[in-house]
Amino acid sequence: MAGNSFGKIFKLTTFGESHGVALGGVIDGCPAGITIDFDAIQNEMNRRKPGQSAIVTQRKEPDEVKFLSGIFEGKTTGTSIGFIIENSNQKSHDYSHIKDSFRPSHADYVYEKKYGVRDYRGGGRSSARETACRVVAGAVAKQFLNQIEIHAFTSSVGDIFMEKPYQDIDFKDIESNIVRCPDTETADKMISKIKEIRKAGDTIGGTVTCVIKNVPVGLGEPVFDKLHAELGKAMLSINAVKGFEYGSGFCGAKMKGSEHNDLYNTDGTTKTNLSGGIQGGISNGMDIYFRVAFKPVATIMQTQDTIDKDGNIVKMEGKGRHDPCVVPRAVPIVEAMAALVLADYFLLDKTYQ
Amino acid sequence: MAGNSFGKIFKLTTFGESHGVALGGVIDGCPAGITIDFDAIQNEMNRRKPGQSAIVTQRKEPDEVKFLSGIFEGKTTGTSIGFIIENSNQKSHDYSHIKDSFRPSHADYVYEKKYGVRDYRGGGRSSARETACRVVAGAVAKQFLNQIEIHAFTSSVGDIFMEKPYQDIDFKDIESNIVRCPDTETADKMISKIKEIRKAGDTIGGTVTCVIKNVPVGLGEPVFDKLHAELGKAMLSINAVKGFEYGSGFCGAKMKGSEHNDLYNTDGTTKTNLSGGIQGGISNGMDIYFRVAFKPVATIMQTQDTIDKDGNIVKMEGKGRHDPCVVPRAVPIVEAMAALVLADYFLLDKTYQ
Amino acid sequence: MAGNSFGKIFKLTTFGESHGVALGGVIDGCPAGITIDFDAIQNEMNRRKPGQSAIVTQRKEPDEVKFLSGIFEGKTTGTSIGFIIENSNQKSHDYSHIKDSFRPSHADYVYEKKYGVRDYRGGGRSSARETACRVVAGAVAKQFLNQIEIHAFTSSVGDIFMEKPYQDIDFKDIESNIVRCPDTETADKMISKIKEIRKAGDTIGGTVTCVIKNVPVGLGEPVFDKLHAELGKAMLSINAVKGFEYGSGFCGAKMKGSEHNDLYNTDGTTKTNLSGGIQGGISNGMDIYFRVAFKPVATIMQTQDTIDKDGNIVKMEGKGRHDPCVVPRAVPIVEAMAALVLADYFLLDKTYQ
Amino acid sequence: MAGNSFGKIFKLTTFGESHGVALGGVIDGCPAGITIDFDAIQNEMNRRKPGQSAIVTQRKEPDEVKFLSGIFEGKTTGTSIGFIIENSNQKSHDYSHIKDSFRPSHADYVYEKKYGVRDYRGGGRSSARETACRVVAGAVAKQFLNQIEIHAFTSSVGDIFMEKPYQDIDFKDIESNIVRCPDTETADKMISKIKEIRKAGDTIGGTVTCVIKNVPVGLGEPVFDKLHAELGKAMLSINAVKGFEYGSGFCGAKMKGSEHNDLYNTDGTTKTNLSGGIQGGISNGMDIYFRVAFKPVATIMQTQDTIDKDGNIVKMEGKGRHDPCVVPRAVPIVEAMAALVLADYFLLDKTYQ
Repeated sequence: MAGNSFGKIFKLTTFGESHGVALGGVIDGCPAGITIDFDAIQNEMNRRKPGQSAIVTQRKEPDEVKFLSGIFEGKTTGTSIGFIIENSNQKSHDYSHIKDSFRPSHADYVYEKKYGVRDYRGGGRSSARETACRVVAGAVAKQFLNQIEIHAFTSSVGDIFMEKPYQDIDFKDIESNIVRCPDTETADKMISKIKEIRKAGDTIGGTVTCVIKNVPVGLGEPVFDKLHAELGKAMLSINAVKGFEYGSGFCGAKMKGSEHNDLYNTDGTTKTNLSGGIQGGISNGMDIYFRVAFKPVATIMQTQDTIDKDGNIVKMEGKGRHDPCVVPRAVPIVEAMAALVLADYFLLDKTYQ
Repeated sequence: MAGNSFGKIFKLTTFGESHGVALGGVIDGCPAGITIDFDAIQNEMNRRKPGQSAIVTQRKEPDEVKFLSGIFEGKTTGTSIGFIIENSNQKSHDYSHIKDSFRPSHADYVYEKKYGVRDYRGGGRSSARETACRVVAGAVAKQFLNQIEIHAFTSSVGDIFMEKPYQDIDFKDIESNIVRCPDTETADKMISKIKEIRKAGDTIGGTVTCVIKNVPVGLGEPVFDKLHAELGKAMLSINAVKGFEYGSGFCGAKMKGSEHNDLYNTDGTTKTNLSGGIQGGISNGMDIYFRVAFKPVATIMQTQDTIDKDGNIVKMEGKGRHDPCVVPRAVPIVEAMAALVLADYFLLDKTYQ
Repeated sequence: MAGNSFGKIFKLTTFGESHGVALGGVIDGCPAGITIDFDAIQNEMNRRKPGQSAIVTQRKEPDEVKFLSGIFEGKTTGTSIGFIIENSNQKSHDYSHIKDSFRPSHADYVYEKKYGVRDYRGGGRSSARETACRVVAGAVAKQFLNQIEIHAFTSSVGDIFMEKPYQDIDFKDIESNIVRCPDTETADKMISKIKEIRKAGDTIGGTVTCVIKNVPVGLGEPVFDKLHAELGKAMLSINAVKGFEYGSGFCGAKMKGSEHNDLYNTDGTTKTNLSGGIQGGISNGMDIYFRVAFKPVATIMQTQDTIDKDGNIVKMEGKGRHDPCVVPRAVPIVEAMAALVLADYFLLDKTYQ
Repeated sequence: MAGNSFGKIFKLTTFGESHGVALGGVIDGCPAGITIDFDAIQNEMNRRKPGQSAIVTQRKEPDEVKFLSGIFEGKTTGTSIGFIIENSNQKSHDYSHIKDSFRPSHADYVYEKKYGVRDYRGGGRSSARETACRVVAGAVAKQFLNQIEIHAFTSSVGDIFMEKPYQDIDFKDIESNIVRCPDTETADKMISKIKEIRKAGDTIGGTVTCVIKNVPVGLGEPVFDKLHAELGKAMLSINAVKGFEYGSGFCGAKMKGSEHNDLYNTDGTTKTNLSGGIQGGISNGMDIYFRVAFKPVATIMQTQDTIDKDGNIVKMEGKGRHDPCVVPRAVPIVEAMAALVLADYFLLDKTYQ
């Protein structure tokens, strides 16, 4: 109820602070008998982990997942899967600058007001470090959604956009560069941009696009739990996300019905796919695609004015190791959340069959 | 579980098809002792109802709400509130054209595939007529959120945008015109546009912006149930919605951290509000604002090719009474969904106190 | 959240007060394509309804169910099923004696304290009239659980117990008498007892036993949601229930392991069934059986001392039409709740397959 | 959804198998600012842990709880509390006798059939070792329910019953003996009985009674989520429980209304308390008391016939270290589950205020 669970059938509950002993979670409702590919899970973790390249935060964390239950002789048993990720990097930094002051555009102030007490070290629970647990669960979910393919990639950094339509790219190229943009030329520009921004002690926003292929017809529920509504919630729950659109999205709001309607082929597929693979909240078998907007990271390596607990203006200097742009590391998180949503609806849909 | 409930503490469950006997719902978890202003509820219903102006569908429905329980001598009792809205307009239209065929960009095809059976009359459960129940519950929620003000308005129709920032408008002007845009000049252009589109037998999309004022600090939950994630889900669950952004939204994804950060005043308010009143998923006391994209209505008064159940190409003629643009009627629905989200978090927040 | 919903996949949400306009509910998550036998539903309603025999309350209510959605051309559509039951008998009784006073062993006092406002007419929401909606939903659930048979019957009234083991009775005899005890001789004694109690202006308790046959192996979930735990909650939620035991029950607590263990036959069935058809919270394919204790009805036709809102001692005279013993009418309610639990687990179990 | 979560506001989710790496859980929804008494938690763990006395299993487990999150500088922060309990005693026993065979009256058979795969070591997830996590969460819950006192004790072992009414005992005496019966004379008989049973290689059932004092008026929700219904579910979810009764319980089913009604004192308390502190599912401020029946432990130190996976009759010899009677160790588990239920309703009730 207090916000640390996601999903209804395939349900993830997580815990852990940025600089606590460990992060972890419980996956409940996973079907039994799934052979778990631990390397595939660790691979997803490695895509998200800090320190992986020159354009992400240099905090060092191995982010090794330790499974504690629910898997026996390599297979899921149908019981709850507990896991932890130890925080190797808990060295007692000097946090005095944020203990009594609130970093601008961070959650420090609202946590202080809501809870009256706050683990200020690295943002505590509000840190994006929490997303490591999402990646674990998403990687487990993917293992029984195998015919469904989920491909996210960086589609913009600042005002550099990948213009090529997703139909023209090879998803294998996503991992060919450190910014995770499958169009190499654009990727190079993005990387340069992020390096330049970092040098200036600044940060920059961007967008991630996600394409989901081979979705069976019928996933999603009517009215409040529409498939795209749950995808939207999932994405908006990721740290730093400011917007979500699927199919034609905000562009669709400028269009006419005669332009926007997707006409059918005789096999039930559609000639165009402005709907984004979902009609009335239910998958129609076409590609699902959506776009997620990430704001620039709030911690910048510049001095800003802010306030302390007593309302005094104080100088806040950027410290620590932070991402100049979250988007490259957000790619596997977007995929993981998409996998969680699909897993849930995939299992729920069985109750109708 | 099957998608017809919304909320956790203040919980709405709805039922009803476009051309069934009645729509209705149950509100559970409403605090006791609230004096219900029935006129205020009916007023919200009137803002949503069909036939209210020249630019909306001409279907005639009084949309009178009948409360069946949970209110005694004018006050809520803390028990579940049941209500129904009779469908006065169920006359047996000729639905043969959609009984065995699937309207393009409607939910007909996916309902047929998912459920194997389908109430084809007017789209059945997938019709936006279902949103009438949301407006009822939202209007009830507003009655104990009184210091919180929720104002939605039409911010674009097609490519006509209201350019004026919301800070410069008077929310009282929203109801001064039939398109519900508080900038009169822009409103006139929007109305002309919709009339022109209707004449062409076409439809058009648009956006609704919503501003929420006087929100206490602390509403929202961490991680998965962030306030904006739930607002996003709520909005995306409304028929025809393709996108949601709050605060800086998709524009924020182009910005630098040094531009985007909201610096504090000594009283905890911020000088700018690119955050959109929410940090880390929790309200910070500043205005919450967000924008919702609606696609053009799929039913157009033109002949389109489509398929029947056997996969034959058939001609589909637009029939019935439909909105040329949903946005004017969507305004109270957006407000209602915002009220439901806030009511839920408002009550949930009490469990921490 | 406020207690008016039951179930996770097959979910019932109800509303309505004893003397309000109508009772009703919403069934969400019902599979599509089920042909609804409306007569079977009404038949269950008739088994529960007041006025059906000489040993139950003489309040007259036709208890006709009106379905408003979710069923099209006689079949469920997979969308939410709304229904109402009008209260025909709302004549303005004189309730002044309970408006400001609290009936002993009723919920009047706690509702007043919890909510501050209370629909005192006939107990409002706390009246067992609410169970009519449970019977509707249970009767719908039974229609897709057809191979599973649920048989409840009266097993005791006061100190008159049916001694015959359930294996020796014919379930068809349950409806052969008005007390719903399948052992005719015992039934006669029970009926005489209830008539005698009524004459004395008193009431009496009793127990209902329920036997569920042909349950597939595997229904139920581990740990907190064990099948018998949910059955227990379901039964304990029925008005006037004070206890629940399944299998060996409280007798089992006196036994030794060597006596209590159920040894296997080669086909996986067990030679004895002290487990009551459930092991580790999961059905094992043997008969599930349990017993439910009902206290005597609190409203007696005698004068009792009680208190008013100001803490003054006042005389409370028994008024109105009440059951001298709830057990005969509780039989279909127990069956309905069992059906709801089984429906939920039946559908949930599909998510593992 | 798959059964490993309990509670709605104060929510516990657990994981872990009897012989896996570790057990653990996540507590979500705990209020912030609670000073955690870690010794009090460990003390509860010690009351439940194996090896604590001559009449319980001799398995050695320190059962030390390691908190991983949600507590900062000794206080809860309002975020999710993760914890683990390592299984120190995982030595590779010889489990070949249960790997392919099903122990009578255990969950082996149903897990095999439901999931197709099973961690057979010590019963895996179906082992009562899982209850350690419940005790952790219950001990946390108790820390903000401080005015509410929860006292459970052994009220019977086999046919030895404590006859003294709970009003005549001193709860401090519960911990004065190893069987946890506050009547010393009866306790001695129980201890002798258990020792005798153990000697015979057998096991025996018993009951636990729980008394909850100083409950505020108003906890509980109407209809399906009645306070006693949730208490019943909580207790029935504990391993080996076969029955639950509160207040007058099954005895109440033999009584007349004129005997059973609790008449009011002028202050709203009642002269008798056959209601058991709950009316209409809501606490009335009087003592809540209930009784829980535990069957004899299924593992006996005798040879029994059973079947293997292929349906062959095989000899099963009792092995390992098991409890001759679960009741002494069940006492803190019953208290913990009661604490979880009360915590949930205590917080939920705030949403009405």
